[in-house]
Amino acid sequence: MELLLPHPSNSSPLTVLGFLERAASVYGDSPSLLHTTTVHTWSETHSRCLRIASTLSSSSLGINRGEVVSVIGPNVPSVYELQFAVPMSGAVLNNINPRLNAHALSVILHHSESKLVFVDHHSSSLVLEAVSSLPKNERPRLVLLKDGNDIPSSSSVDLDFLDTYEGVMERGDPRFKWVRPKSEWVPMVLNYTSGTTSSPKGVVHSHRSVFLSTINSLLDWSLPNRPVYLWTLPMFHANGWSYTWATAAVGATNICATRVDAPTIFNLIDMHQVTHMCAAPMVLNMLTNYPGQKPLRSPVKVMTAGAPPPATVIAKAEALGFEVGHGYGMTETGGLVVSCAWKPEWDRLEPYERAKLKSRQGIRTTVFAQVDIRDPITGKSVKHDGVAVGEIVFRGGSVMLGYYKDPEGTAANMREDGWFYTGDIGVMHPDGYLEVKDRSKDVVICGGENISSTEVETVLYTNPMIKEAAVVAKPDKIWGETPCAFVSLKYHDGSVTGKEIREFCKTKLPKYMVPRNVVFLEELPKTSTGKVQKFLLRQMAKSLH
Amino acid sequence: MELLLPHPSNSSPLTVLGFLERAASVYGDSPSLLHTTTVHTWSETHSRCLRIASTLSSSSLGINRGEVVSVIGPNVPSVYELQFAVPMSGAVLNNINPRLNAHALSVILHHSESKLVFVDHHSSSLVLEAVSSLPKNERPRLVLLKDGNDIPSSSSVDLDFLDTYEGVMERGDPRFKWVRPKSEWVPMVLNYTSGTTSSPKGVVHSHRSVFLSTINSLLDWSLPNRPVYLWTLPMFHANGWSYTWATAAVGATNICATRVDAPTIFNLIDMHQVTHMCAAPMVLNMLTNYPGQKPLRSPVKVMTAGAPPPATVIAKAEALGFEVGHGYGMTETGGLVVSCAWKPEWDRLEPYERAKLKSRQGIRTTVFAQVDIRDPITGKSVKHDGVAVGEIVFRGGSVMLGYYKDPEGTAANMREDGWFYTGDIGVMHPDGYLEVKDRSKDVVICGGENISSTEVETVLYTNPMIKEAAVVAKPDKIWGETPCAFVSLKYHDGSVTGKEIREFCKTKLPKYMVPRNVVFLEELPKTSTGKVQKFLLRQMAKSLH
Repeated sequence: MELLLPHPSNSSPLTVLGFLERAASVYGDSPSLLHTTTVHTWSETHSRCLRIASTLSSSSLGINRGEVVSVIGPNVPSVYELQFAVPMSGAVLNNINPRLNAHALSVILHHSESKLVFVDHHSSSLVLEAVSSLPKNERPRLVLLKDGNDIPSSSSVDLDFLDTYEGVMERGDPRFKWVRPKSEWVPMVLNYTSGTTSSPKGVVHSHRSVFLSTINSLLDWSLPNRPVYLWTLPMFHANGWSYTWATAAVGATNICATRVDAPTIFNLIDMHQVTHMCAAPMVLNMLTNYPGQKPLRSPVKVMTAGAPPPATVIAKAEALGFEVGHGYGMTETGGLVVSCAWKPEWDRLEPYERAKLKSRQGIRTTVFAQVDIRDPITGKSVKHDGVAVGEIVFRGGSVMLGYYKDPEGTAANMREDGWFYTGDIGVMHPDGYLEVKDRSKDVVICGGENISSTEVETVLYTNPMIKEAAVVAKPDKIWGETPCAFVSLKYHDGSVTGKEIREFCKTKLPKYMVPRNVVFLEELPKTSTGKVQKFLLRQMAKSLH
Repeated sequence: MELLLPHPSNSSPLTVLGFLERAASVYGDSPSLLHTTTVHTWSETHSRCLRIASTLSSSSLGINRGEVVSVIGPNVPSVYELQFAVPMSGAVLNNINPRLNAHALSVILHHSESKLVFVDHHSSSLVLEAVSSLPKNERPRLVLLKDGNDIPSSSSVDLDFLDTYEGVMERGDPRFKWVRPKSEWVPMVLNYTSGTTSSPKGVVHSHRSVFLSTINSLLDWSLPNRPVYLWTLPMFHANGWSYTWATAAVGATNICATRVDAPTIFNLIDMHQVTHMCAAPMVLNMLTNYPGQKPLRSPVKVMTAGAPPPATVIAKAEALGFEVGHGYGMTETGGLVVSCAWKPEWDRLEPYERAKLKSRQGIRTTVFAQVDIRDPITGKSVKHDGVAVGEIVFRGGSVMLGYYKDPEGTAANMREDGWFYTGDIGVMHPDGYLEVKDRSKDVVICGGENISSTEVETVLYTNPMIKEAAVVAKPDKIWGETPCAFVSLKYHDGSVTGKEIREFCKTKLPKYMVPRNVVFLEELPKTSTGKVQKFLLRQMAKSLH
């Protein structure tokens, strides 16, 4: 049997790009994208993507296979289309966060050697500033995206742009044969990490890893055909956890939201009968704290990840009619590779107990291979007893190819023992469910005891006065480090003191875990993707008396 | 970027075997298998499969990696378990149809070099006869399966068997580490084709192709978590179109049916609140012709394939409450690689029009790469106009590795142009939907005109008197071939004549397509998997005056 080798007829490279062609056949007349007054069908989206891809690879733009094309913009139809169109031309897709500053942006454009940037009109001055700081021979060409109703007058900026998106589209050929990758290991996307803990790194995913992440996204929700999917999660954030491509596989209606506030979201859910959405925990938190909101008319499945959501937030969201799914992943794994699959026996539990079990990150998604907790030094697997702490490690098809131009960084995470080391700390419960305890940097080591900052935060969130909470290490001469809490309150009447918060914690936590300091902030500092910037809080904690 | 190469952490071989471990974690207490008085949970199924796998690879049985282990039996729990247990030991799984005769069986055991056969007690004398005809050094060892309530007294047969299934189980270790394939291209299953058109061929599928077929099975139905799945389709038939593994991925309750008749099926559907089932078209036909059946209490999704179901059968099944899905595949593609995905705009059509569109085989399943219609001689793609006829060709991850010990047969189907040639004839409609017209052997060439036997059969099925119909070529001195119809009737009162059938056809078909002969049979001859044996009908047609 070993004589039977792969043949071209059974070894087509795995790729998500064919999903679009299929959507045009099956769901051709169904809506693909809705945004303000824009309505596209799947057959239009298919032909628009082919047009863009054809112009990209034509001599007029002349992007070569494997060269990087960047996209900078919010959740608008053109940004969605580019998730397909750029790789369909054979180029590598690089989504950039429009909330970066000009310096960070120029670092990424330089590092990625981007040849062309599609720029949403809201970001044009930012991009022009970033580009002007690059040497002339490094400057990418720019194409202007003009989605939405608030399009600026064209006079000044247009001179700096090669063309508009619709101009590139008009020159394209809808009969273009999209570029199938020669191998499924060919790079397809380049995503720079949000930089919570370190300088940005360029995460490269192959067609294969994107394909497997997308399959996981489809299976994890048993995503039905023609769902109505609301985009609050930015597409530039790990390609919206691969739902950019998953929604094409099932002919979804993609509802684009550029404003992410509670009234807008509740209004879109109601208007379009949204069935599914992904949301960062802070968005979920915002929705559950929105005063006076009535329960949803029909249930909405919401998937959240990025940081462990407190059990109270989950419980409140469910009371409103959200069915909260929760998972764990990182830019390096494309989307969620662990998710908290519901166990039938949990149906019998009290809501708070249920929410507590549900706030565990969960079990590997269906097509992901292996998750384990290992000692970061020895690489040995720790006990799966829900207590032994170690570094979370992954093995599976959604793990990135590596960091671009960073062999040391790649080797540090993708180790010789064949595992990807996440840098996150967790425990494995006896039922095989993973619980993230902390980013390795976020563990507070107090008198030799490891304190999980997440565990303290979870308790803080159960206090009805507290809106947001984050705990970091404060250097201490005696203890080494002590836990220091930063909180923002729901009501600004100053009626709560730090002492009261500490007393509250004492009723729920071992004494050594109770924060020694409690600092009140109006709002916690966050990255553009909604993660609390703990390095800033650590600096503040350091400077406290 | 080309410096980024696969690493063990991102290149775990794709395999379905891990689905079982995950099912034990998530659905551990939920029922996995029900059969007569047997009830297993997913955690039991997991540990039972590990035990069997451990004994298989232990020194007592000593099956080496890559050696073939056969299974011969109906849809019972042990046969389900062996779909996991055999490959988990590193051996190659070979399911054999228990309705074969002893000679055909010995040919397969010899050709596959099977080292061990798990034999259902109903098949023990058949297997003993087949084995006795093999040279002594070629005889596989036998293990007896004793599922169900009708277990024979153990005296005589047991001497010929090495052990019983439960004996093998008891000696096993539930902590066994299952054998992960070294590469996803390693063979996992060996299925002999039913031999409708030629002598049996051993179809080899790799872990990768089984994985991709299973993903297709999951996505094509948007299979929810914890469905109730009724087994009427034999597991030995292309591994039940990969639902053997798909049901583990979603923690389904597998209902095993060993008798496939209308009262049994309707009773099981009602008793267990079945949600999903696969069925050969003849089973669907049988169910829709069952007199006095009331509509189902809640809808059941039924997937059918193997031969194009007549539009009338689909319409009748839907009236009973079945939601009929329909697809196309073959042993060489593992499961269905084309399926008739529903188009929203069809909702507006009349039932018969809908059923007609639905009886087209459809579009490639989500993760399959490409389907085309090509001229079998020149290999050129024909027009996608619903009219131009050619051979159906495939390219995608579910296509087999090849035929075992048959490089010529493999090369004849998996051609140098990179396509797998199916031997089936079809057209591609402008909307990208495939319609199978015939097996290449089943086309009737009459006076130079190609007549699709399926097209004539579809018309015959619209006649309310006709139960079954098949059309084959009858040699003719003038015309070369003429179409000859074989039909069985619903009522045996002899009130219909061949002339009346021909008159009926004339009202619905071009004259050249009307069968010149109509032969009445009590029942059409079929293979063990329910396909009409057209080669037998061709012999009968030849001998007609």
